[in-house]
Amino acid sequence: MMIEPEAAPEWKIAQWLNTRMPLSVDALRGKVILAIAFQMLCPGCVSQGLPQAQRARAAFSPDDLAVIGLHTVFEHHAAMMPVSLEAFLHEYRIGFPVGVDQPDGSGGPPLTMRAYEMRGTPTTLLIDRQGRLRTHAFGHLPDLQLGAELATLIGEPPLGSTRPSGEPGSVCTPEGCS
Amino acid sequence: MMIEPEAAPEWKIAQWLNTRMPLSVDALRGKVILAIAFQMLCPGCVSQGLPQAQRARAAFSPDDLAVIGLHTVFEHHAAMMPVSLEAFLHEYRIGFPVGVDQPDGSGGPPLTMRAYEMRGTPTTLLIDRQGRLRTHAFGHLPDLQLGAELATLIGEPPLGSTRPSGEPGSVCTPEGCS
Amino acid sequence: MMIEPEAAPEWKIAQWLNTRMPLSVDALRGKVILAIAFQMLCPGCVSQGLPQAQRARAAFSPDDLAVIGLHTVFEHHAAMMPVSLEAFLHEYRIGFPVGVDQPDGSGGPPLTMRAYEMRGTPTTLLIDRQGRLRTHAFGHLPDLQLGAELATLIGEPPLGSTRPSGEPGSVCTPEGCS
Amino acid sequence: MMIEPEAAPEWKIAQWLNTRMPLSVDALRGKVILAIAFQMLCPGCVSQGLPQAQRARAAFSPDDLAVIGLHTVFEHHAAMMPVSLEAFLHEYRIGFPVGVDQPDGSGGPPLTMRAYEMRGTPTTLLIDRQGRLRTHAFGHLPDLQLGAELATLIGEPPLGSTRPSGEPGSVCTPEGCS
Repeated sequence: MMIEPEAAPEWKIAQWLNTRMPLSVDALRGKVILAIAFQMLCPGCVSQGLPQAQRARAAFSPDDLAVIGLHTVFEHHAAMMPVSLEAFLHEYRIGFPVGVDQPDGSGGPPLTMRAYEMRGTPTTLLIDRQGRLRTHAFGHLPDLQLGAELATLIGEPPLGSTRPSGEPGSVCTPEGCS
Repeated sequence: MMIEPEAAPEWKIAQWLNTRMPLSVDALRGKVILAIAFQMLCPGCVSQGLPQAQRARAAFSPDDLAVIGLHTVFEHHAAMMPVSLEAFLHEYRIGFPVGVDQPDGSGGPPLTMRAYEMRGTPTTLLIDRQGRLRTHAFGHLPDLQLGAELATLIGEPPLGSTRPSGEPGSVCTPEGCS
Repeated sequence: MMIEPEAAPEWKIAQWLNTRMPLSVDALRGKVILAIAFQMLCPGCVSQGLPQAQRARAAFSPDDLAVIGLHTVFEHHAAMMPVSLEAFLHEYRIGFPVGVDQPDGSGGPPLTMRAYEMRGTPTTLLIDRQGRLRTHAFGHLPDLQLGAELATLIGEPPLGSTRPSGEPGSVCTPEGCS
Repeated sequence: MMIEPEAAPEWKIAQWLNTRMPLSVDALRGKVILAIAFQMLCPGCVSQGLPQAQRARAAFSPDDLAVIGLHTVFEHHAAMMPVSLEAFLHEYRIGFPVGVDQPDGSGGPPLTMRAYEMRGTPTTLLIDRQGRLRTHAFGHLPDLQLGAELATLIGEPPLGSTRPSGEPGSVCTPEGCS
């Protein structure tokens, strides 16, 4: 018996930056999605996760791959408000769409982070052309592996099978960044 | 005729972090000072200027060298308020004292930045044991050169002579970061 | 009309290291081949091409991918004799099979290098499961792109189509290294 | 009681490269000497020790600092003969004088390596203006520390005092490279 990959939970987004219209897993169906969950003050996100997402965006056709940021703030909320995020994206020249993960209203992890049961930031999510979550990695993958997984998903027409992956690098959890 | 190094202008600080009592050029007389002017959302400060200041702090005795940060915000003011700076220092494990440069009240460069006529961030300042500004570099110096300049200043008992220096790396100016 | 990828020319090897039996394009049919042509005294090979080949070897199954080195000496012949190459492979912990490209007998580029019309070192060659040359790049590819190309070739059962590629990094030509 | 720094043992050199006339500790008296002992097939020498020596050579005046390489081959002798070393220096664009440490005639560590009781390569030696060995470090020093030590020695007119130092990086010993 094989475990079928599950549908990727829909994102809960309070506000989008770098895009005129809201995006969703459903609306992007047909493309492969690389979603990078990050916090603007997470060192491993700044030095590794986000630059990798920018490289991936440059390496594949936008017809095949959508690169999306999810700003999943679970600590220092007041320090990373949208006004700060906006300046951050500007200074670091991050051009892909970024959704601000919907706060839970009581200072805990935001809603998308909860729906995906993320352990911290950065988290790398790969969603296939059918909207199914195929890779969920805490940290970032080596470039060789990410390139291979993206090419495999891009090459798939209809149905595929799950391939788990992920080796954390420098990451943040609710216990702090390491 | 030789140009005498000038007294370093006193810093104008709205608020200190990472120190119980306010610091000043005058109060630190007797030690060499490495002051790094930065903005928390300036990529070159995060990747180069601040890590170098941390290395310098680890390489020399605190009896000889005081390492100080100056948060000289001249753009995106609302994005880099003290609450954000505080979280930034925590996440990047920056332990040296940081002074928030006093805003000018009308959205321009803050007062210390003006007094030193800084061109942008990061800016590296070396102040000798007598409180005189000896190096003023836009960007960061190569480690070999910084080590050499600090050792020279630390080795000076009384009077010394100016040695200008500085080669910018990745920096921010009012026109943007490069 | 589409240009069919050509059969990869057979290697002409004077001596193999790191393998008990000689290897050939033909004998490896059924696997994807990553062949890295290098010189042990080419800086770009040492800092980039060879480490990337080692990463690729670790990232994919040996049932799918064969990683091969080709020592294509076209300058300083006396400096890079097999006795030196052997020590080099030992010190740099390069474990994959390396073939010494057959000298031409008159001090020019060796025979395999000529057969592939290589411009210098490193050169990256990707050969598909059917023994056809699919990528021929002077320099090394970005990891993301190499990972994607390897996954695509690995995923192919029978026939495929050419995808050219390649952006040189730090490389050596008969005019010198840059 | 203070331990006086000792006179640096004279080098025993079989052959010099990159210089028209032989060099010696004695002949260089009056300058500070940075001598880097290396092997051309030692990975840590290639990636760290030698580039640092090149940076130091660029950062200080040749009137103050002489940068010298010592090729101290203690393993794979046949692989690192002068003909190979010469090509290595050419390809890596190493322009400072390099002395080939005199073999002992029976395959053991060469004579200069023995005289200095070096543990492996790279080894960093700092010799003051009076020809005294002031720093002997297995591996390479951080740039900040090397810059500081060099500036201190350059700033000394007559007599000084010992300051030991050294933290190994990636190094080779007779047991192998790590």
